[in-house]
Amino acid sequence: METLSSNRSFGGIQSVHRHASAETGTDMAFSVFLPPQAIAGEKRPVVWYLSGLTCTHANVTEKGEYRRVCAELGLIFVAPDTSPRGESVPDDPDGAYDFGLGAGFYVDATEAPFAANYRMRSYVERELPGLIAGHFPADMGAQAIMGHSMGGHGALTIGLRNPAAYRSISAFAPIASPMRCPWGEKALGGYLGPDRARWRDYDATALIEDGARVDALLVDQGEADAFLETQLKPELLAEACDRAGIPLTLRMQPGYDHSYYFISTFMEDHLRWHARRLG
Amino acid sequence: METLSSNRSFGGIQSVHRHASAETGTDMAFSVFLPPQAIAGEKRPVVWYLSGLTCTHANVTEKGEYRRVCAELGLIFVAPDTSPRGESVPDDPDGAYDFGLGAGFYVDATEAPFAANYRMRSYVERELPGLIAGHFPADMGAQAIMGHSMGGHGALTIGLRNPAAYRSISAFAPIASPMRCPWGEKALGGYLGPDRARWRDYDATALIEDGARVDALLVDQGEADAFLETQLKPELLAEACDRAGIPLTLRMQPGYDHSYYFISTFMEDHLRWHARRLG
Repeated sequence: METLSSNRSFGGIQSVHRHASAETGTDMAFSVFLPPQAIAGEKRPVVWYLSGLTCTHANVTEKGEYRRVCAELGLIFVAPDTSPRGESVPDDPDGAYDFGLGAGFYVDATEAPFAANYRMRSYVERELPGLIAGHFPADMGAQAIMGHSMGGHGALTIGLRNPAAYRSISAFAPIASPMRCPWGEKALGGYLGPDRARWRDYDATALIEDGARVDALLVDQGEADAFLETQLKPELLAEACDRAGIPLTLRMQPGYDHSYYFISTFMEDHLRWHARRLG
Repeated sequence: METLSSNRSFGGIQSVHRHASAETGTDMAFSVFLPPQAIAGEKRPVVWYLSGLTCTHANVTEKGEYRRVCAELGLIFVAPDTSPRGESVPDDPDGAYDFGLGAGFYVDATEAPFAANYRMRSYVERELPGLIAGHFPADMGAQAIMGHSMGGHGALTIGLRNPAAYRSISAFAPIASPMRCPWGEKALGGYLGPDRARWRDYDATALIEDGARVDALLVDQGEADAFLETQLKPELLAEACDRAGIPLTLRMQPGYDHSYYFISTFMEDHLRWHARRLG
């Protein structure tokens, strides 16, 4: 693991690292914020943040405004990339922003030519946690997961599939049901093929319909979000949670859009919500 | 004045605007954060933030983490660009980062070919305040000024020259004495010519030696800042303040560098310091 940068911030250290991923077959970059308590030697809980379409680790690292609260609460904050990258990695044939590079959708692809590299599910669920456990003072028994848009979908599905691993789950403007929106239909079809039964493992509402259960979910959604009605559809998640008896706190935020101006506003609420559940 | 973007954030509105500047002869962009109190119709104090070399309004707008505290305290936050820009604007002959585009040094240039466009002193001191007063619910009787690096130099010199206009002044890692560092000697020589007597209006320590007085100054400086000894030299400002009897709070911050990871950490302290003086 190579350290690309390391900067003191809010009494902790914000760093960026690169490693050769066995899952993706590429170099992968990620960022880590260590709070002062971790620098002082304590093992601290880990909050995973999964980013949206077109993003790398850098977007939330620069614009997410999480360090002040993580420093106060003693939370380690890890932000992975959103896809494998490199000259050899197959991309959307038209170079579209919503498939291929920057758009891994947190799946393990089964279809050629994507199956070799697009293994973001296994990368986020297994490989990167192993690397974090080995290199940082992380309490891997206390993990939370959150994300934005495509990364909100990632956080919900990874959390719902692994309730023993993640004590709490939240999302900003998640793609609530990729099986029922254009972004998701394109991505799941492209990575997993046309059999929609195989998509259900990557759809938060389908996972809940199929029996997945968690103690609680927190979702913030801007009412002025341009993708709200066509792509995000939080009402589908609300209906599934309602039927399954999963307590969902869905906060519709008037005037807020899909940007980091929205995310940074409510980041503190999410981190405090996770910290209460991480103990 | 054209509005390029407008985003709800922390209960306020972060916007970016463009206008045709009479001073620079170019279009100029700037960002404004209106706190909730201003949106509700109150006239609120204005904090000016001047950015460093290579920056535009966007750097602090994205990475400065000022909106939460400005929303709480009811402060309007304005971030201008650092130079005129455009195909017709003369740049450093070698395209260097420390002169020309992105490096206006907050002076009114007198030398050809820069004198026509490089009028950032008059732009920040007069033209942009007029525009802000005309378009936003700003209490122009309650202004503060702050900045980073080259913008720290700008905030100190503009504040020292106009103590009636700015009730408080602070800086992150300012160029304390441009007459006595390579960045400043290149810039002041290029914009103002070889007569160093004409540089003194643009050097905080020289202004103090020549009689400028303010009630207080706040400066934060990272001890791990790569530019500390060669370019920034806060000890020169400390000596000038000491001789003049100006109370300078100079905080040396162990481990912090020159980046926005440093600035964002101490932004809250500066904003609260200004708010106390703005009443």
